[in-house]
Amino acid sequence: MEKNRLEAFSDGVLAIIITIMVLEMKVPHVETLPELKPLLPVFLSYVLSFIYVGIYWNNHHHMLHLTRRVSGGILWANLHLLFWLSLFPFTTGWVGESHMGEAPLALYGFVLLMAAIAYVILQNAIIRQQGKDSPLAAAVGGDWKGKVSPAFYIAGMALAFHVPWLSIACYVAVALIWLVPDKRIERFLERREKE
Amino acid sequence: MEKNRLEAFSDGVLAIIITIMVLEMKVPHVETLPELKPLLPVFLSYVLSFIYVGIYWNNHHHMLHLTRRVSGGILWANLHLLFWLSLFPFTTGWVGESHMGEAPLALYGFVLLMAAIAYVILQNAIIRQQGKDSPLAAAVGGDWKGKVSPAFYIAGMALAFHVPWLSIACYVAVALIWLVPDKRIERFLERREKE
Amino acid sequence: MEKNRLEAFSDGVLAIIITIMVLEMKVPHVETLPELKPLLPVFLSYVLSFIYVGIYWNNHHHMLHLTRRVSGGILWANLHLLFWLSLFPFTTGWVGESHMGEAPLALYGFVLLMAAIAYVILQNAIIRQQGKDSPLAAAVGGDWKGKVSPAFYIAGMALAFHVPWLSIACYVAVALIWLVPDKRIERFLERREKE
Amino acid sequence: MEKNRLEAFSDGVLAIIITIMVLEMKVPHVETLPELKPLLPVFLSYVLSFIYVGIYWNNHHHMLHLTRRVSGGILWANLHLLFWLSLFPFTTGWVGESHMGEAPLALYGFVLLMAAIAYVILQNAIIRQQGKDSPLAAAVGGDWKGKVSPAFYIAGMALAFHVPWLSIACYVAVALIWLVPDKRIERFLERREKE
Repeated sequence: MEKNRLEAFSDGVLAIIITIMVLEMKVPHVETLPELKPLLPVFLSYVLSFIYVGIYWNNHHHMLHLTRRVSGGILWANLHLLFWLSLFPFTTGWVGESHMGEAPLALYGFVLLMAAIAYVILQNAIIRQQGKDSPLAAAVGGDWKGKVSPAFYIAGMALAFHVPWLSIACYVAVALIWLVPDKRIERFLERREKE
Repeated sequence: MEKNRLEAFSDGVLAIIITIMVLEMKVPHVETLPELKPLLPVFLSYVLSFIYVGIYWNNHHHMLHLTRRVSGGILWANLHLLFWLSLFPFTTGWVGESHMGEAPLALYGFVLLMAAIAYVILQNAIIRQQGKDSPLAAAVGGDWKGKVSPAFYIAGMALAFHVPWLSIACYVAVALIWLVPDKRIERFLERREKE
Repeated sequence: MEKNRLEAFSDGVLAIIITIMVLEMKVPHVETLPELKPLLPVFLSYVLSFIYVGIYWNNHHHMLHLTRRVSGGILWANLHLLFWLSLFPFTTGWVGESHMGEAPLALYGFVLLMAAIAYVILQNAIIRQQGKDSPLAAAVGGDWKGKVSPAFYIAGMALAFHVPWLSIACYVAVALIWLVPDKRIERFLERREKE
Repeated sequence: MEKNRLEAFSDGVLAIIITIMVLEMKVPHVETLPELKPLLPVFLSYVLSFIYVGIYWNNHHHMLHLTRRVSGGILWANLHLLFWLSLFPFTTGWVGESHMGEAPLALYGFVLLMAAIAYVILQNAIIRQQGKDSPLAAAVGGDWKGKVSPAFYIAGMALAFHVPWLSIACYVAVALIWLVPDKRIERFLERREKE
């Protein structure tokens, strides 16, 4: 089984997710810039989620680059990841609509956490199929980012009900950590090419 | 005629169907988690339909993997399948909106049934073009799943007006039966590779 | 310049057009099947437009199959075609919403006519680049369908204000004429393969 | 790292952007053509934005044609461009909804400006990776269009609050300048082929 269609389908779903989130920014019935102010939280949560989907697309891209064959299990692990990502427009919209309310922020973190778990499951499914000596296993290595992120998400969920701005800070922090694409894999690829 | 564009177009349509279904989960004007409770049936019907579209994508993927050439008839059989799948967001939304009402559940089953029939028509169109000794014909074989599913859909439609939860159970059961990707084809591919 | 991205982009746009049309079928706040009756014209216009987009995708697929290189002019002729097709969801929605009203039916025919003209412009742009002895020029030949369709569209537009059902009949007739994929090209391909 | 997925993802996002803009043209509850008149500014701003997205797709297509390898930096520069393009449906909708209001026209120009800047950043990221002797650097050359456009956008933003129709004229002028696909690259390709 080839990975092309898996990539194409994932690209399609991610492209739609990243684009329909902007539909939550409803065209207002006002005519001046200051009147757009209530849209600011909607816009900011859109920016954050856009970056998150971009991160997932980037890492997904890198990961599948090191994948040769795709099994039924990998197909479903991938769909599982896409499922949680497909909830981003909803949680993003709720966070924006409620002007960064407590429960919306907590749910936002929960969906981020589930997507992170789904990503690890997919990664493990690919490594399991390729064997422990696979290039992906070598490239992922310690994966400190993957271990730190869930902790931040859980902290963000807990803080949402007490210090909302710290909750937001947690989610922004993880985005910043990941914004740099997976250098491990890039470095690995460069090394392999030189050899 | 090559199958690439058929796959690309189908991937596009399926990616959009699976993603716009989430738009039925309208961002609420509430601020606490318990207030989200009315969205639960909408969410659950989204999950079920997501799995169904995932199943169709998976099986479509497997089937076209065993297809070489595409004829005009196959193109239209594929569009016919996509048509019924494109109604999923509507029936899913209605089931959720009506909190799993009777008529919505029956219509949901009807569209599932029509999609299943469309899938068989597409499968037959491909086998007819490839000949009875084709790899797809060999791989599909007895196809007990394909024979059992319509019976469940019809049962679900009939039960919808009398024991709604049994109707739901029928649709969930079929999803579980198919959740396992078409092992017949996977096994066939493995065997062929070994030879 | 390669045609792959032109095909991929067109597939994307056509896949979205064909799918978002279904969003005009708004999930109703009713719970029984008879109450769905007001949705019937919306559903029927969706079916007709789905078939039309399917026809365009099919013929576009065939045409580009006989295209080698893509010029800037062809890119824009293709975008021009996609523009008119992108108005299908609007005119389809209006025809359905107005229960097949007079002006909506006329506008529906107008957009069909413009799309047909855009298709011919694209076809000519490709033939011009390939030369008169090109396979596409040979395959298209007399093109009676392409000549008859605009006449039907214009008739449908005129009839819309007087005998609406005859207007609908015109649009359905053209769909039926084209439903059969472009046999000329298929036959041509078969012949070429045999030689 | 290959560019295929970058192209596929960008095609997907651009295809969705260009298509969902049409959703701002809400199906009206009227039945005659003159009653559609209030939709005219919505339609005209849709046409302009359709052309702009078409221009970006065309130029993106040309640029990536001269790109071999894709780095992490290029991936993010591309996502940055897509981000600003993803705001087109919002600004287009606002311009249409407000019947070409002052603030909406200024914001429309601002997003056009940011997209233009993002495009230059992406172009520079690609050239930086390829080296100054790269085909893209040679093909882009003086780039008078790229230098003139931002000036027009800024003029359009300033004029929006004083002479709205001149603001619109600025945006239309830039569209006309770019409508012609990047002949520099096309000419370069032709020359290279001849050598």
